[in-house]
Amino acid sequence: MNTFGTLFRTTTWGESHGSAVGCVVDGCPSNLKISIADIQKELDRRRPGQSKVTTSRGEGDKVEVLSGVFEGKTLGTPISMMVWNRNADSSKYSSIKDLIRPGHGDLTWRLKFGNVDWRGGGRSSARETIGRVAAGAVAKKLLAEFGIKTVGFSREIAGIWVEGALTKDKIKAIDTNPVRTFDCKKARLMEKTILDAKEKGDSVGGVVECVSFGVPPGLGEPVFNKLSSDLAMALMSIPAAKGVEIGGGFKLACMKGSMSNDEFVLDRGKVKTLTNNCGGILGGISNGMPIVVRVAFKPTSSINREQKTVNLKTKKNATIQVEGRHDPCVVPRALSIVEAMTNLVLADHGIMSGMIPRKL
Amino acid sequence: MNTFGTLFRTTTWGESHGSAVGCVVDGCPSNLKISIADIQKELDRRRPGQSKVTTSRGEGDKVEVLSGVFEGKTLGTPISMMVWNRNADSSKYSSIKDLIRPGHGDLTWRLKFGNVDWRGGGRSSARETIGRVAAGAVAKKLLAEFGIKTVGFSREIAGIWVEGALTKDKIKAIDTNPVRTFDCKKARLMEKTILDAKEKGDSVGGVVECVSFGVPPGLGEPVFNKLSSDLAMALMSIPAAKGVEIGGGFKLACMKGSMSNDEFVLDRGKVKTLTNNCGGILGGISNGMPIVVRVAFKPTSSINREQKTVNLKTKKNATIQVEGRHDPCVVPRALSIVEAMTNLVLADHGIMSGMIPRKL
Amino acid sequence: MNTFGTLFRTTTWGESHGSAVGCVVDGCPSNLKISIADIQKELDRRRPGQSKVTTSRGEGDKVEVLSGVFEGKTLGTPISMMVWNRNADSSKYSSIKDLIRPGHGDLTWRLKFGNVDWRGGGRSSARETIGRVAAGAVAKKLLAEFGIKTVGFSREIAGIWVEGALTKDKIKAIDTNPVRTFDCKKARLMEKTILDAKEKGDSVGGVVECVSFGVPPGLGEPVFNKLSSDLAMALMSIPAAKGVEIGGGFKLACMKGSMSNDEFVLDRGKVKTLTNNCGGILGGISNGMPIVVRVAFKPTSSINREQKTVNLKTKKNATIQVEGRHDPCVVPRALSIVEAMTNLVLADHGIMSGMIPRKL
Amino acid sequence: MNTFGTLFRTTTWGESHGSAVGCVVDGCPSNLKISIADIQKELDRRRPGQSKVTTSRGEGDKVEVLSGVFEGKTLGTPISMMVWNRNADSSKYSSIKDLIRPGHGDLTWRLKFGNVDWRGGGRSSARETIGRVAAGAVAKKLLAEFGIKTVGFSREIAGIWVEGALTKDKIKAIDTNPVRTFDCKKARLMEKTILDAKEKGDSVGGVVECVSFGVPPGLGEPVFNKLSSDLAMALMSIPAAKGVEIGGGFKLACMKGSMSNDEFVLDRGKVKTLTNNCGGILGGISNGMPIVVRVAFKPTSSINREQKTVNLKTKKNATIQVEGRHDPCVVPRALSIVEAMTNLVLADHGIMSGMIPRKL
Repeated sequence: MNTFGTLFRTTTWGESHGSAVGCVVDGCPSNLKISIADIQKELDRRRPGQSKVTTSRGEGDKVEVLSGVFEGKTLGTPISMMVWNRNADSSKYSSIKDLIRPGHGDLTWRLKFGNVDWRGGGRSSARETIGRVAAGAVAKKLLAEFGIKTVGFSREIAGIWVEGALTKDKIKAIDTNPVRTFDCKKARLMEKTILDAKEKGDSVGGVVECVSFGVPPGLGEPVFNKLSSDLAMALMSIPAAKGVEIGGGFKLACMKGSMSNDEFVLDRGKVKTLTNNCGGILGGISNGMPIVVRVAFKPTSSINREQKTVNLKTKKNATIQVEGRHDPCVVPRALSIVEAMTNLVLADHGIMSGMIPRKL
Repeated sequence: MNTFGTLFRTTTWGESHGSAVGCVVDGCPSNLKISIADIQKELDRRRPGQSKVTTSRGEGDKVEVLSGVFEGKTLGTPISMMVWNRNADSSKYSSIKDLIRPGHGDLTWRLKFGNVDWRGGGRSSARETIGRVAAGAVAKKLLAEFGIKTVGFSREIAGIWVEGALTKDKIKAIDTNPVRTFDCKKARLMEKTILDAKEKGDSVGGVVECVSFGVPPGLGEPVFNKLSSDLAMALMSIPAAKGVEIGGGFKLACMKGSMSNDEFVLDRGKVKTLTNNCGGILGGISNGMPIVVRVAFKPTSSINREQKTVNLKTKKNATIQVEGRHDPCVVPRALSIVEAMTNLVLADHGIMSGMIPRKL
Repeated sequence: MNTFGTLFRTTTWGESHGSAVGCVVDGCPSNLKISIADIQKELDRRRPGQSKVTTSRGEGDKVEVLSGVFEGKTLGTPISMMVWNRNADSSKYSSIKDLIRPGHGDLTWRLKFGNVDWRGGGRSSARETIGRVAAGAVAKKLLAEFGIKTVGFSREIAGIWVEGALTKDKIKAIDTNPVRTFDCKKARLMEKTILDAKEKGDSVGGVVECVSFGVPPGLGEPVFNKLSSDLAMALMSIPAAKGVEIGGGFKLACMKGSMSNDEFVLDRGKVKTLTNNCGGILGGISNGMPIVVRVAFKPTSSINREQKTVNLKTKKNATIQVEGRHDPCVVPRALSIVEAMTNLVLADHGIMSGMIPRKL
Repeated sequence: MNTFGTLFRTTTWGESHGSAVGCVVDGCPSNLKISIADIQKELDRRRPGQSKVTTSRGEGDKVEVLSGVFEGKTLGTPISMMVWNRNADSSKYSSIKDLIRPGHGDLTWRLKFGNVDWRGGGRSSARETIGRVAAGAVAKKLLAEFGIKTVGFSREIAGIWVEGALTKDKIKAIDTNPVRTFDCKKARLMEKTILDAKEKGDSVGGVVECVSFGVPPGLGEPVFNKLSSDLAMALMSIPAAKGVEIGGGFKLACMKGSMSNDEFVLDRGKVKTLTNNCGGILGGISNGMPIVVRVAFKPTSSINREQKTVNLKTKKNATIQVEGRHDPCVVPRALSIVEAMTNLVLADHGIMSGMIPRKL
């Protein structure tokens, strides 16, 4: 349940305010060159406190690699990675520990497990995704050896939608603005809208789009472990994700077949499609075009406003106002998690399909 | 890859124009009363030839149960079910077997497997879903023992969107019209639009919504096998599915947290939410409210119109016009598959969570 | 639970006196040439009624291949195979259906599942292994493409132990005698001992040894899915198996390290071991030497002698004498199952290690 | 591959001379009371340096619990445990790093992975089993809540066999002698034989027997995940294990059915067997009698004697004499690993069968 993947497998562990959080990556091919910096770089993109649109919590999040790497290369054995929890302030949670926060898993976790670490959301905190991002960094490095590159960006924030496909020349623009999108005008609008919501103690949602370039044809295992279904599972498992679509997605539902079908054509001896409504996946298998996925994130659940709730101890109706340093919008940080999960799926399918050997 | 589930497991097999298609259901608790009629009823809903908006192919699809049931009750051993393939007409496919059909997996399957049964789509045919629906019928029967009922309907077809939540009193209306929605006025409009497209050799897409009533709190295994992520995987594995959302889904991405959060309130001693934007799942675990999922289906890929393609044998650009008896819209039949996959996920999670015992 | 393997996966189904028994093989690479005869040949070796030392039940056991093979080659899709149950005589079981047979799973299956098909042992009958042998035949054919050949023989029956390693020149002798061993003198002694026991309504046990030639180095996944541990699991799952050993096995426990260690030496540029006490597996990974496994089978549980038991209906002590046509010794037929399970493990590990590609 | 179990899952990680070794236990029910001392106690039994018959390496092996436990009780989330590697002396390995040690996995790991941590055996070192023993301690604590207790002892060392079944009154004697058996006379003989071998730079093997008391009927999942087959897999995965048997094991192969069958009799309303040749498992399912397993361990591979080997760098025949502090016999320490693996299997099957709930 805390393990993901078939041959390239990630197990994450850790509570938000426990000793540490981490992951074990099993099944990574041996002889892959990898350094701490490769992993830290990805964690730094996920890290809070990067700008005004994210939380001001200053988590250092320095990763330690405890196994699986020897003389700068992977051994083919489990890679254990860990980040100590520091700067955790449980006091804000102590006062509301009997109140269930709307939008959070407080109630359902309590009903399921009985014993819950209420400090900072415990295991249901987004801090769990540190393990995913560290594992995803290994997958990213592995996929790079085979020319595969995955890039995420904010496609929509607070209803502000960015037009146009992500092409390689637009990638550079993404990290130039705090909301991480390639349209700099829209970026300013998005930023303003987030800060407006923040000021009012509110939050906003958005959509992350993630494009994988260089994926060869043949990845995906019909009929249940299609590339699309495994991506859907991976992406929907991200905290706050409520929707996933591939290629044209929900828009295809309103189209005619004569418009939605991607016609085939020969391009220098290779079969290509003229359009990419299928998002690079046909019949559950990659077709060589860019893989395009989109994930809908709901607005941050922790808001500084009075909301109705129930006190589980007194068994009475109550109200709650969640204080603390929370992201007014999860999207800019979530995109590094979307990239990580996409990379984990591609690495797993790459190995299963035989594209990636067990020993480099 | 052709097996789905952790403890309640379904393996499907069979090519569209091979000898037969079928499935093996493993892990169903013993002592469940079940009859052939229980399974046949679901297959009949999936079956083509039910109305003008579906294909006119007259597949009989009579199921045989070969194992796992003894004296009307399950044994706890694998339930093997099978439908012989009859009325298969491979001639239409013979003439286009070197042309890859736009929107289909013809190209990707060939690149991946080399040897492909081109007759009727082979394994990538929607006929594979017979096994899913038969397995889903077993899951449905099992879940009924615990008061869980899942109902699917057409939420949108060809851009025509039905408003309002599915409530129990609206369920009856769904099967009164060929497009299977609860709004009878919109149903007529949908039907007309499908037939218009069909006449023009075209097809349309749509959205199936599926609501599960009576699911108790506690189903779902964080962090990767959340109820939401396993549902996403299951539903995205259905042929032609290109998007999945839970509860408010993509609409939540445009909302403020103060609107999207479902506030809590006591209702006769139990905690309920005032709204259900989360679709019955919080933190990946069911919260006792109805589970609401939506699946976007692209328009049927087989259309009777000239489209650009490539001839794999001659390695030249070509055109193709797919003849034969195809559904102009997959949505009315697909909803029985959406129900089946939802039931399979719920049965599996019901057993994993301990809600459903191994022996009834 | 009824599925075995990670990438090359076998699911078996069926009760002894139900409609049919069968299996689904998932994950077999595409483009493997295979015919019904390849599979039937293996089933014929497992089939009862071959000699006086086996049961006289005349089961035809003709296999049908329902999917996964097209134009004589595998598709890479699930291979569904089936044998109809005929010549089943449930009358003998009817009279003892409330008595639990010593040595059988009658009691434990009833306690676990409640509902049990008591006819012919139901699912716990060795007839279940038809599915394993059919699946094993596919694995055997696949492994042959890579020069791997697995041969089983009776190493011991009723305490009569055959000396010497199985070398390639001794293989031919195995099928010349009904007890299937390569030492023809010992074979006659074994046969006589079995028939003596049979005459007295008794049964005997024995040990099957299985040698896999041509396995390249590198198969096996430390630390839990070692080649040795996956073989142990596979072989111990065979009905009546009570012990498994690799190479020197239990004898090594009485030796000194200076004797048991296999010393290394160069042989035409390749590293070989001078002895093979490790049975071809070091550190859980194949080392290029023949893989040697041994399985201990207890005597057939069904014996024509009075034994103490309990009547589950009357809840009183009782006696039972099991009539019917039972093997006085399972070993000669079991060796085809040992071969099958060994081949399934090797095929699975062959694919996992990358030795066998997904597409031939 | 480094993960074991279906619902109660253990992932181990770490190289012998890397930073640390550890494990993640996933699927442990919530609300189980557990302390560091519960885990440390088991690690101390496994720890080297306990007597003259084990290695003199003084590994402290203090466990840290990093997640999954809150206020003294499990959370139902992954339990991450870790032991830092200290006192590692790689110098002895440096001089022989191009020589492959007979009996070890040096060659096979190199062929499979290319990049190998040669220091102290790396991942193939028995130090990896620290993670297993820590995980087993959690399983032991969980099983104790259900009255299940597993005890291992040395049944045979260097050919010296202890007679008689382990009964509850003999348990206390086991830890009174360094070889850990219940027959104190034989214990002295065993000890002397081990020390004799040690003096001559040699090593000896032996057999661990493990008995699980209090296991209720109904554990085990036919047909592949029988309790016996999962135990066989678990036990054969232990370093140096070369054989596994259940109950009478290989001895049953020499018996008649009339002797090996365990007859049934009523005992205060419950069905019991008069003997326990089946080792508590019938048809793959526990029958309520003690579970009895035996594991054959080969002599320690590292011996202080000259042996033939190959230098992989020079590609020439060579000799090797392995120095360092090695156990002259692994059996006394291995029995804590046998207990751990047995407990892991029982916990997993206990949860799967529904005997153990997900929340205590």
